[in-house]
Amino acid sequence: MRDLASLALKVEGGRLRILDQTRLPFEEAWLDGSDPGAMVGHIQRLSVRGAPLIGVAAALSLAAFAESGASAAALDAACAALARARPTAVNLMAAMDRMRAVMEGGGAAADLVREAEAVFDEDVALCEAMARHGVPLLAEGEAVLTHCNSGALATAGVGTALGVVRRAWEAGKVARVYVDETRPLLQGARLTAWELKTLGIPFTLLTDSMAAILLREGRVSRVLVGADRIARNGDFANKVGTYGLAVQARHHGVPFHPVAPWTTVDLRCPDGRSIPIEDRAPEEVRGYGGALWAPEGDVFNPAFDVTPAGLATSLVLDRGLVRPGTDLAVLAP
Amino acid sequence: MRDLASLALKVEGGRLRILDQTRLPFEEAWLDGSDPGAMVGHIQRLSVRGAPLIGVAAALSLAAFAESGASAAALDAACAALARARPTAVNLMAAMDRMRAVMEGGGAAADLVREAEAVFDEDVALCEAMARHGVPLLAEGEAVLTHCNSGALATAGVGTALGVVRRAWEAGKVARVYVDETRPLLQGARLTAWELKTLGIPFTLLTDSMAAILLREGRVSRVLVGADRIARNGDFANKVGTYGLAVQARHHGVPFHPVAPWTTVDLRCPDGRSIPIEDRAPEEVRGYGGALWAPEGDVFNPAFDVTPAGLATSLVLDRGLVRPGTDLAVLAP
Repeated sequence: MRDLASLALKVEGGRLRILDQTRLPFEEAWLDGSDPGAMVGHIQRLSVRGAPLIGVAAALSLAAFAESGASAAALDAACAALARARPTAVNLMAAMDRMRAVMEGGGAAADLVREAEAVFDEDVALCEAMARHGVPLLAEGEAVLTHCNSGALATAGVGTALGVVRRAWEAGKVARVYVDETRPLLQGARLTAWELKTLGIPFTLLTDSMAAILLREGRVSRVLVGADRIARNGDFANKVGTYGLAVQARHHGVPFHPVAPWTTVDLRCPDGRSIPIEDRAPEEVRGYGGALWAPEGDVFNPAFDVTPAGLATSLVLDRGLVRPGTDLAVLAP
Repeated sequence: MRDLASLALKVEGGRLRILDQTRLPFEEAWLDGSDPGAMVGHIQRLSVRGAPLIGVAAALSLAAFAESGASAAALDAACAALARARPTAVNLMAAMDRMRAVMEGGGAAADLVREAEAVFDEDVALCEAMARHGVPLLAEGEAVLTHCNSGALATAGVGTALGVVRRAWEAGKVARVYVDETRPLLQGARLTAWELKTLGIPFTLLTDSMAAILLREGRVSRVLVGADRIARNGDFANKVGTYGLAVQARHHGVPFHPVAPWTTVDLRCPDGRSIPIEDRAPEEVRGYGGALWAPEGDVFNPAFDVTPAGLATSLVLDRGLVRPGTDLAVLAP
């Protein structure tokens, strides 16, 4: 496998390493990802996260496993285990479908490596294509609100929603980014704030419950978020909190856009009701990082919510801007 | 001063003690509140919190100080310092206005004690009056969503919004309470969950960002929240996150009611724009309880937000139900 590098993933001398995102922003620790069994754990613990990136990481892990001489049966089992690691982000299943097609076509290790490298390269290019379509939406001096992390930590490239923000900021269009902390796992506070700080983009951190004030006061001109799966009718799943934010943006007349690559679209889901939503452990809500502050009891902890297409001003895909109400099948290759 | 007891405050042998709410739910530690200087700190650190309770606690602290032989000048200064301890909850200023009126009328220590005892007793009665008006709103089997803590920990009695819930549950009307964790200081996760657990009322904890899902799915039949200050036109300040929740409740057609005693109404504020909002320290958003998880940078941390009266289905006051659009001056004594 050739050497590859993104912000949160690198291949050096055929060895795959991933940045442990659970330890950001204060510690940059790298984990070995060359073993698919370990990679399943990294994905489930969110050490590697972001819908596009988990697809890329899973493909590269499988390629490294093939290079190490794994049997066809072992590769097949590893591919299935990776595809099942998390249920909502369809990029993961899409990447595993590509790898399985190579295996079923009698591909050798070198073919799997080439396919995984292509998944990586294509993700980088998809990010730039989203930015090309998204940046023209912004006027000068916009204040963008975002939720969770959809940047270079979530993809192999500059990101989806945060990639648009970054390219727009480089074009002088972004005055400030408002960052929802994104409970329960705080991807906004830990990851997006860190990424923006690293890039030198001015940002303000807030709790998820404070966004409505900024929308009401006209301090946010646009909301940009990522997506983990987009149904054929444009309904989309994203990190929990996105739906409530979409409702608030609509109430205040603030433009709201999901930004995602084609690999996030699942034409087999007719609408949002058919997107499976992952429920996670109660301890994530009862506390954070091992600390608990709530008493034991019943907890509601879906990792994602579904926003109906109608609440989006437009969808920003690498293939262009899409109005809500569009059947995404018309964009299929 | 006679002995008094509520869930979070007690007077025993003339000594005032308050439950340190920053250490709940896992530790029940009591702090001395007999010295007004210390009480200012307890209020600012939210060891004692809840708009009605801080008014009661400040009045009792001043009464204990008077009983200890404080001079008129010292009492005057203490009264002013207590009134300034937090800027949004008007109950505190209202209680201090009552105490100052006694002092200015030449009242002795015994008169200040009687006034503070009356503030306590009246708050207990106001809670029951709110419940009398609020409980009939609920049908059988309701699932109520609440934000922050408006229960026995926030008042001298059973509470405001959570007092209605408790009395309605005793009447067999409440099937479940959904509890917003209420970032940044987690009063829902730490205090409301603890209070409901103590009472045996079924509850489910969620992050603030998950409420919209429950509203959309019809799993919440009603939203009840407290208030820290209600303007003459019915606009009201409450714990940050309330406004966004009100927007979401309206979008989904779910009834939404603030519940508060008359002591929370400030007729000198014509509308919500004239309610002062307290900004708190960035560290409250960058982490919790001494732990930090976000990098340094700009933070937005208003303790409260303002909900326009028009988003409320009705206001539940001790004096009755009030339709939005009502000039609250018509209810003045």
